Amino acid sequence: MSAYAKLTDYHQQLSQLQEIQAISSWDEACMMPTGSGDRRGQAMAALARTIHAQASAPELGDLLDLARAESLDAWQRANLGDMTRNWKIARALPMDLVSSLSITTSRCEQAWRQARAANDWPAIVPLLEEVVSLSRQRAAILADTLQLPAYDALLDTYEPALRTSDVNAEFESLKTFLPPLLDQILGRQSAPIPLPGPFPVEAQRQLCQNVMELLGFDFNRGRFDVSHHPFCGGVPDDTRITTRYDEKVFLESLMAICHETGHALYQQGLPADMRGQPVGNSLGAAVHESQSLLMELQVCRSRDFISFLAPQIAAAFGGAEGDPAWGAENLYQHATHVEQSLIRVQADEVTYPLHVILRYELEAQLISGELPVARLPEAWDDAMTRYLGVSTGNDYANGCMQDVHWFAGLFGYFPTYTLGALAAAQWFATAKQQDPEILSGISEGRLAPLLTWLRSNVHGKGRLLTMQPLLREVTGSELNADYFRRHLETRYLN
Amino acid sequence: MSAYAKLTDYHQQLSQLQEIQAISSWDEACMMPTGSGDRRGQAMAALARTIHAQASAPELGDLLDLARAESLDAWQRANLGDMTRNWKIARALPMDLVSSLSITTSRCEQAWRQARAANDWPAIVPLLEEVVSLSRQRAAILADTLQLPAYDALLDTYEPALRTSDVNAEFESLKTFLPPLLDQILGRQSAPIPLPGPFPVEAQRQLCQNVMELLGFDFNRGRFDVSHHPFCGGVPDDTRITTRYDEKVFLESLMAICHETGHALYQQGLPADMRGQPVGNSLGAAVHESQSLLMELQVCRSRDFISFLAPQIAAAFGGAEGDPAWGAENLYQHATHVEQSLIRVQADEVTYPLHVILRYELEAQLISGELPVARLPEAWDDAMTRYLGVSTGNDYANGCMQDVHWFAGLFGYFPTYTLGALAAAQWFATAKQQDPEILSGISEGRLAPLLTWLRSNVHGKGRLLTMQPLLREVTGSELNADYFRRHLETRYLN
Repeated sequence: MSAYAKLTDYHQQLSQLQEIQAISSWDEACMMPTGSGDRRGQAMAALARTIHAQASAPELGDLLDLARAESLDAWQRANLGDMTRNWKIARALPMDLVSSLSITTSRCEQAWRQARAANDWPAIVPLLEEVVSLSRQRAAILADTLQLPAYDALLDTYEPALRTSDVNAEFESLKTFLPPLLDQILGRQSAPIPLPGPFPVEAQRQLCQNVMELLGFDFNRGRFDVSHHPFCGGVPDDTRITTRYDEKVFLESLMAICHETGHALYQQGLPADMRGQPVGNSLGAAVHESQSLLMELQVCRSRDFISFLAPQIAAAFGGAEGDPAWGAENLYQHATHVEQSLIRVQADEVTYPLHVILRYELEAQLISGELPVARLPEAWDDAMTRYLGVSTGNDYANGCMQDVHWFAGLFGYFPTYTLGALAAAQWFATAKQQDPEILSGISEGRLAPLLTWLRSNVHGKGRLLTMQPLLREVTGSELNADYFRRHLETRYLN
Repeated sequence: MSAYAKLTDYHQQLSQLQEIQAISSWDEACMMPTGSGDRRGQAMAALARTIHAQASAPELGDLLDLARAESLDAWQRANLGDMTRNWKIARALPMDLVSSLSITTSRCEQAWRQARAANDWPAIVPLLEEVVSLSRQRAAILADTLQLPAYDALLDTYEPALRTSDVNAEFESLKTFLPPLLDQILGRQSAPIPLPGPFPVEAQRQLCQNVMELLGFDFNRGRFDVSHHPFCGGVPDDTRITTRYDEKVFLESLMAICHETGHALYQQGLPADMRGQPVGNSLGAAVHESQSLLMELQVCRSRDFISFLAPQIAAAFGGAEGDPAWGAENLYQHATHVEQSLIRVQADEVTYPLHVILRYELEAQLISGELPVARLPEAWDDAMTRYLGVSTGNDYANGCMQDVHWFAGLFGYFPTYTLGALAAAQWFATAKQQDPEILSGISEGRLAPLLTWLRSNVHGKGRLLTMQPLLREVTGSELNADYFRRHLETRYLN
């Protein structure tokens, strides 16, 4: 048996444990009763320790060296590259730190749910300080291992080979063109006709499920549930997405599902013959987000798709035929309404990048140590006022406590949302140019041509290439904010 | 750090992985989509291999030897005894066998669900043959390790220190007094007034949940869901029970929930200060079943409890006040109706032991090799006719395919159901004699006095004593079928 074959067997077993870990995490968010949190946190930490021990086993070193000398094809070489990188990172991180991070973030995330509901910022400060301190230790070790600055090292764990310089280049472009564009849009848009609620939860759920089916979600290998914050979890052969419902609005849960279905389709479309191997996994968070945002922003919020779906939406909530409130044009105005607001996950596609830039700048300072956790609310309020012209004040729940990420130890993740939005515009512009069936399909509720294009150009590629080379191969250029700018101009200034 | 302290740390980590395993098993039964079965089977096998490797680690041998020489209290000695036994068993079982069993039973159990629905016995034979063959290999190894006959060794894994001789003694007693008692009961009982359905699922679910609360289930550390076959799963701090609904009958799902709540209360009442240690676990399946049957048979099917619950039942399903069909006496007649039937899980408490004796005798022959899998249907039909006077014919789904146990590799488990019924009668006779508040509480829907007695006499004892010594300590005698006989005579011949 070749060294490479031994390595694939080993990683198959490792990925199986990681799949159990993914299902258990989903359970923690969707199913676990409140009083079980402490004990579950310990159990998850025990599993993380076990996985870490296997991922960092010293004997892998020799096998990796031997395999490098073997004759391998492109997929195998990429697989070996990922194995090597994962092993180096795992070896660098001490077991104690991995375990502390798992316990502390699990505890902090659970406490955050209650503290956020009570707008109780002081209650969460000590736990968040612990999470930041452990995350800084982790960043320092990764920086040393990957030979990168600390924040770049974190970025690299979320999107391999992505650098602060890539982020800064695109973010500077956004900072230049977004504010004047926003002013123009706010100046010309009119308020849509309000939609009369309430919107019963069961009708919303059924509509979401229909849309998931329409977009191509495979329910034979997936689930759809409710959680505090919408997410896509599980594993390629058991992909689980969630949303949350509010009887006063329906567009949020529906668009959350369009978004999460985009993630899910990526996961379900990963190359089956590479299942359980590092190269068979999805690329990083930016590419993942490009798939969810392609589905949400480019497809589901388009005039074509909304026009197709409008009759189903009206029927779901008892909208009368011919009532302009339930007509396609008014629904489209709702789906593309732009507004300066406090909440990232409710933000429209024009202001969203500004929410992200704010978080990117603050988290870089949290990781560098420049910004202490205790001063986060005032720094947040200051940046909100500068970028979005709205003040958070003491509304922490809708301010710096609104997102789970930092409380769950996710630093370096936020920029990937906006890079994903840029890449989504870039993929979609290319796709619709390469196959005209894609646009006509969307206007008829036929998503198969688009899914076929995505499967062959993105999903089925796994981690064969990193983000920039893949973009170059498929679209002809590296990440470029111009596609996104043109998309916004076409949608909002025509 | 003492050797004993090192061992408790080690077992804490091991139990945490086992808790993840328990939650993942629950997920497999309640949440997992059909198409994910193969990959999940592999993932569960990987986790089982990892747990097995840790449970059988050679370095534990020296620690166990050293700890035996340390000064330990009774709980610690019992804990060390369980650690030693578990380690010996784990060392004896080769990793390959553990892994094959996990994959094969997972596959067979999934195939059984479809084959049973289609009454397709031939479809499941090859997989069941594999399961039996692997189970026989396992039995032979356990027999060698525990110095017991093969079937006794399997029995011992489900209820420590329980022997075939214990089972035979009580089963002979049952075979003597049950048939004439059954004739007497059938001769004198009259048919209850039929209850008009349908019984909407949501009304059934709500009633079940109310009863769970009444009996003392802690929803802060537990859940209640639907699955193919009712069960109690999860872990002490996250106890999950399930039932299934049929709109044509409601008593089945309600009594299944009374039963599973009995299991759940045991699990939730295990000694918290021994959490994660072997001695802090529940005793075997017979004692576990004694807790579920105490709750179902002794409490919930009693005239006292049914009288208390009757108005709630009538209200749940729109029964008119004063209608004798919905009166306490008629509901009690339904809950205690005796009938010779094909299905074990639908059987009443009088005929149930005969279903078990049939399975006990057949599985002993499957394990000895005397009975080949292919001949199971005819052996089943023959025994049904002898013990219960009803023939299965070609109705495999309601014959030898009705129970999941053998398809999931559970051999040696069936007798524990009936031993549990006997022990339930014995515990309850003792409890109501020691605290008169218990009976009056039940007739008023106050279960606290009973739960207090169970917590202090059974649940809180963990695995400090094995079954027979515990029965002796609490009730004054070892397992004795006379309690069960007196219970049946009092309930059915008065």
